[in-house]
Amino acid sequence: MNIKELIGQIQPLDELAMSAARERQNILTKPQGSLGRLEELSIQLAGITANPLPLVERKSIIVMAADHGVTRDGVSAYPAEVTPQMVSNFLRGGAAINVLARQANARVVIVDMGVAVDVEDSNGQLIRRRVGAGTANLAQGPAMTRAQAKESIQSGIEIAEAEIARGADILATGDMGIGNTTPSAAIACALMDQSPENIAGRGTGVDDDGLKRKIAVIARALDVNKPNADDALDVLAKVGGFEIGGLAGVMLAAAANRKPVVVDGFISTAAAMIAVSLAPAARDYMIAAHVSHERGHVLMLEWLELNPLLDLSLRLGEGTGAALAFHLIEASTRILCEMATFDEAGVSDKE
Amino acid sequence: MNIKELIGQIQPLDELAMSAARERQNILTKPQGSLGRLEELSIQLAGITANPLPLVERKSIIVMAADHGVTRDGVSAYPAEVTPQMVSNFLRGGAAINVLARQANARVVIVDMGVAVDVEDSNGQLIRRRVGAGTANLAQGPAMTRAQAKESIQSGIEIAEAEIARGADILATGDMGIGNTTPSAAIACALMDQSPENIAGRGTGVDDDGLKRKIAVIARALDVNKPNADDALDVLAKVGGFEIGGLAGVMLAAAANRKPVVVDGFISTAAAMIAVSLAPAARDYMIAAHVSHERGHVLMLEWLELNPLLDLSLRLGEGTGAALAFHLIEASTRILCEMATFDEAGVSDKE
Repeated sequence: MNIKELIGQIQPLDELAMSAARERQNILTKPQGSLGRLEELSIQLAGITANPLPLVERKSIIVMAADHGVTRDGVSAYPAEVTPQMVSNFLRGGAAINVLARQANARVVIVDMGVAVDVEDSNGQLIRRRVGAGTANLAQGPAMTRAQAKESIQSGIEIAEAEIARGADILATGDMGIGNTTPSAAIACALMDQSPENIAGRGTGVDDDGLKRKIAVIARALDVNKPNADDALDVLAKVGGFEIGGLAGVMLAAAANRKPVVVDGFISTAAAMIAVSLAPAARDYMIAAHVSHERGHVLMLEWLELNPLLDLSLRLGEGTGAALAFHLIEASTRILCEMATFDEAGVSDKE
Repeated sequence: MNIKELIGQIQPLDELAMSAARERQNILTKPQGSLGRLEELSIQLAGITANPLPLVERKSIIVMAADHGVTRDGVSAYPAEVTPQMVSNFLRGGAAINVLARQANARVVIVDMGVAVDVEDSNGQLIRRRVGAGTANLAQGPAMTRAQAKESIQSGIEIAEAEIARGADILATGDMGIGNTTPSAAIACALMDQSPENIAGRGTGVDDDGLKRKIAVIARALDVNKPNADDALDVLAKVGGFEIGGLAGVMLAAAANRKPVVVDGFISTAAAMIAVSLAPAARDYMIAAHVSHERGHVLMLEWLELNPLLDLSLRLGEGTGAALAFHLIEASTRILCEMATFDEAGVSDKE
């Protein structure tokens, strides 16, 4: 299915299921509203799944990796060779996302969307959907062609739909790509018409000089490419990344298939902005895992009108915040499905 | 062991274990500090347990219930009969805390610290440590005697030490007691020298008139009893509750036994203020689960210098916030113990 057809399938949340969930929350043995965000989440999940008693047991985290030509301009604290090294670390189970996914009992799906060099994969676990050997340097011209932007989104859709076909109840997004806070910030600047100073942060930890360089690079990228804010594909192509396009595709596919998708941090949120620009109805299927330490993330979440679940000063990516948020999201559904009602428990309601 | 002896056993956090944990965090395959609060937590847990690779697998939530004479003054949205009804609900597994504890794989220990009427317990799961049949009305005189205050703390210590003897790696506190935000607010006002307007909230949901009544009741309680802020036992006896004293005892025992204790919401935080007033060194063994919707909780956490993990607008009690926080706390230890180092994974460190 092409992107346009898939977007056409995205429906609004199911109001009947949401009403039923809301009514049930109000007769469970607790003061109404006393579980705050958990109650809201359970109602959103009912609307997403069109099920008044939603389940989110089977969890998949889709981690997409790619390289970025802009790293040649010194925008990251780490060398570009770390991208394939970390993908290998994911495949061996030694990274933070592996640890947190094991704890959350979630599958981790690792996708090479365009790492610059070939990644060794002795266990055959890596999904190869390489759009190219890293993007071009967005400070000098478009990061990719419009066809590549479409291909990255299309790949994300197909990978998400394969996970859903395997039985996933809920998806989450994660990223790996040295330098990818730069295209993410550029996307946010383009879509929100913000200045790079307000959005760009230290990423994995650049110093003051590095941050100045990064802000100048983003300003140059916007100036050279003039991305069109009314055309999200143009923004993705000119100042984006292959993994960012892939993650936007994952989010669109989740929405079209009535599955919740947990949006991780800064890079995933940039992808969410692309997805919502293409399909505003996709927003209601998203759950923001956390607000990261990275400057600009708060503004991006506000633009999306998403209220993050966690605030733990995370700035790692990989889907780590999303993996942590799974527990809260599942808790909300368990409360709704498992708690006794006032009648069942013989407890007196409010006077 | 009496309370004074137990307090004398509380040691500072283990600096060597904390240094070792900090050093290990810095060589794991992620930018230094990029897991934010999780990294800090893992270092605190190393210091608490004197173990550079701390484990928090076996979890116990101690939920203490009691009644409050002050409910006769109309300070709660629910009738006092709900206290025993909810204790029965806990024993049958139908309450929010049961659902969240099952998800967290945590034991729930239910303690009757002084419910006004006898609670039926067909399964023999209820621990009966009744200090009295509810407190006296603190708006008219002391809620309990000084001997009862000591007995409540002593019971909390014994129950916590029994859980630790059973193998608990980590404890959490929870409460049930219609009316108990009133004594909790009164304790906070007394210890912080704050006015009731700044501390009292709507609890389970009193309306504007109810809130006014509650504030007036707390002001009267402070005026009638004149609790001595330099004598936490006096504060607990005059304006406290049996479950609040019990929870303070749980926290003191955790600290004396080098176990972390997760402090739930408003009532547990009032208990933490009693515990820290008795033994300032106990504070470092505490982890604040969340900041609740209840007014004053932020100020109480600031007074304790505790930084809450979650902010989900919860206002239920029972230990529900603590049960949710367990996942994050365990995540912090798993990151420390399970992640690969840069050397192990062959990943290049920062340039």
